[in-house]
Amino acid sequence: MQKSHIVTLLTDFGLEDHFVAVMKAIMLEVNPDLNFIDISHMVPRHDIASGAFVLGQAYSYFPQGTINLAVVDPGVGTARRAIAATAGGRFFVAPDNGLLTYVFNNEEVVLTHEIASDHYLRRPVSTTFQGRDVFAPVAAWISRDIQLQQFGPQIHNPVKLKLPELTRVRDTLIQAAIIAIDHFGNLITNLKPEDVPPYGGPGKKCKILAGQREITNFRKTFSEGLPGEVFVVPGSTGYLEIVVNNGSAAAELNLKPGALIGVVLA
Amino acid sequence: MQKSHIVTLLTDFGLEDHFVAVMKAIMLEVNPDLNFIDISHMVPRHDIASGAFVLGQAYSYFPQGTINLAVVDPGVGTARRAIAATAGGRFFVAPDNGLLTYVFNNEEVVLTHEIASDHYLRRPVSTTFQGRDVFAPVAAWISRDIQLQQFGPQIHNPVKLKLPELTRVRDTLIQAAIIAIDHFGNLITNLKPEDVPPYGGPGKKCKILAGQREITNFRKTFSEGLPGEVFVVPGSTGYLEIVVNNGSAAAELNLKPGALIGVVLA
Amino acid sequence: MQKSHIVTLLTDFGLEDHFVAVMKAIMLEVNPDLNFIDISHMVPRHDIASGAFVLGQAYSYFPQGTINLAVVDPGVGTARRAIAATAGGRFFVAPDNGLLTYVFNNEEVVLTHEIASDHYLRRPVSTTFQGRDVFAPVAAWISRDIQLQQFGPQIHNPVKLKLPELTRVRDTLIQAAIIAIDHFGNLITNLKPEDVPPYGGPGKKCKILAGQREITNFRKTFSEGLPGEVFVVPGSTGYLEIVVNNGSAAAELNLKPGALIGVVLA
Repeated sequence: MQKSHIVTLLTDFGLEDHFVAVMKAIMLEVNPDLNFIDISHMVPRHDIASGAFVLGQAYSYFPQGTINLAVVDPGVGTARRAIAATAGGRFFVAPDNGLLTYVFNNEEVVLTHEIASDHYLRRPVSTTFQGRDVFAPVAAWISRDIQLQQFGPQIHNPVKLKLPELTRVRDTLIQAAIIAIDHFGNLITNLKPEDVPPYGGPGKKCKILAGQREITNFRKTFSEGLPGEVFVVPGSTGYLEIVVNNGSAAAELNLKPGALIGVVLA
Repeated sequence: MQKSHIVTLLTDFGLEDHFVAVMKAIMLEVNPDLNFIDISHMVPRHDIASGAFVLGQAYSYFPQGTINLAVVDPGVGTARRAIAATAGGRFFVAPDNGLLTYVFNNEEVVLTHEIASDHYLRRPVSTTFQGRDVFAPVAAWISRDIQLQQFGPQIHNPVKLKLPELTRVRDTLIQAAIIAIDHFGNLITNLKPEDVPPYGGPGKKCKILAGQREITNFRKTFSEGLPGEVFVVPGSTGYLEIVVNNGSAAAELNLKPGALIGVVLA
Repeated sequence: MQKSHIVTLLTDFGLEDHFVAVMKAIMLEVNPDLNFIDISHMVPRHDIASGAFVLGQAYSYFPQGTINLAVVDPGVGTARRAIAATAGGRFFVAPDNGLLTYVFNNEEVVLTHEIASDHYLRRPVSTTFQGRDVFAPVAAWISRDIQLQQFGPQIHNPVKLKLPELTRVRDTLIQAAIIAIDHFGNLITNLKPEDVPPYGGPGKKCKILAGQREITNFRKTFSEGLPGEVFVVPGSTGYLEIVVNNGSAAAELNLKPGALIGVVLA
């Protein structure tokens, strides 16, 4: 597989503490030529689904061979496995808790190894900060051409989150969900443009039920929205988003990731 | 023009999402040798004036040839133009909405091109995330020596914000304004030291009216302030700042950018 | 001493403004090959003790020769000294206000010089932003092999914070303290595992008095905690931490850094 010196980082560690810098320091000791790109360290703490979504949105834009280090790890210190994987031409190092769900779902060729040997780890391995002792060293050694099988045996059942799916409740009603909320308060759904009539989906027209609202305006861009109007746009994520132009749909509708919404087809 | 591999980034995208990382990924695909320096991604959302101020304070310190990528873009997806410019020996890529106002005002030699051709863009161009599809690719191709005319025609009327100006209301009263607030709550005015007597300006003495306060203490450094005292210092920005030592003048005076203040000359 | 091109940065400047980028720009003008690693810019403002703790936790993981630039500087513009130091094979540039306390306490061989000459500084030196005019240039010139004595004379009395110490109040009671709180709300104490019986310290058992609580559960990892339970773990910092699994001990116990706690030995 093609190699790159890029290491991306995604964690729920925040930006106040030494945690992220320590992981980078550990990696620089192994390979001083690494180029770090922070995806985010502001994943809500212990929120594996949010972290998985953000990683899933970012990784495929990076060059082949990029190493993605992801640590949102509420089970640190327990028997949950640590894994190193290749998928879609990139490398991934993470706890085996579903953080790679979107990667695994998107990519056809996935190879996953458990990090079982402690040969490449920082010892003794802490029970509370394995970003430092397990994940960072493994990411750095991958950049030094250590093969995944050196870290431990291949596994075939990495943990995947059960993502909300579209459900046809009846002929004229599809149940969907909010899967993420971005910095601007846009509500990202699991609907794609081809799922609903206004953007070319089957049927003639539809409305979306979300929170206490009926949303009937489907637009192409944020700035077409009237002041205060709640409407739908096809987002850059590939999903439909419920938005308010110059406002926060999340605040307006008071919804959180996981909330169910309905699509009523005419 | 001298070339550098430095790309600065300034956005209102926040740090929670994949947006900034995706822009960097797109650029690394075009040029793996880029050196990214984040100016800020915490510009208040859609606040072009704040973004313009922060960029205006930062860009001139970077080496000649630095490429500055700035995206605060409430008009994304509308007919607002995208531009690439050179000014003061640096490059700038941004929406044409006033984000480069301080740059244009500071520099004598400015050359601006519209990004009109989609040849170097990521296609199809999203209507909601042109940081990814327009601005990042153009910034990266500039680093690969693509000339600005390759992106589109030169333009002579880029948008500039109307910045608040000093107004002499009467002989003894100048109207000024708060133009920015920093992390410490310091209120940055559009007054320069040479505008007021205590720092060498014309006249004998003065006081500043701001919020409900009369400010009569003019000092050289923060730490000269008494506990809780609201006073003035010549800031590192080149402007006078209204500050509270170890406190927040913004909270104390309850003022926001754009607020008018008065200088009463004796 | 071994050289590296790594410069770490730790400040209380926040992420909204141009301050951090300007320091990096100044350094890149002196040495375009620098590799910046941000430790944190979210040290609570003017909180030297918190900054010292985070720096103390991070620096020793970086490669030999790393240059650590730390600016939490409530005394900027006063007569407080600026210093450049070597300790533990790394370089440090900071105000002389205790920000290097943990470094000085940890390392046996420390050499400290005052930054007294303005030869390498950006002139005129601002009274309010010496990160730009003093600390950044000195850090960059160190990376260009300028020796510490070039900046000014050696000093032997750099400022050190008085850190809270363990005090044996009586045979069965040790007074300790909270020294830091991390992003997760974990309360980091100045107790080490060898200080208390559950982790091998002297005696048979103990309880910890913190806030209004008696803490009697001593565990090895976060995830062993019961829901809502306040308990103790040996942290990755080397200190014992008071934590709540999936919660914030800081919020639960309403304690801040500096708060005293007690260890009652059986």
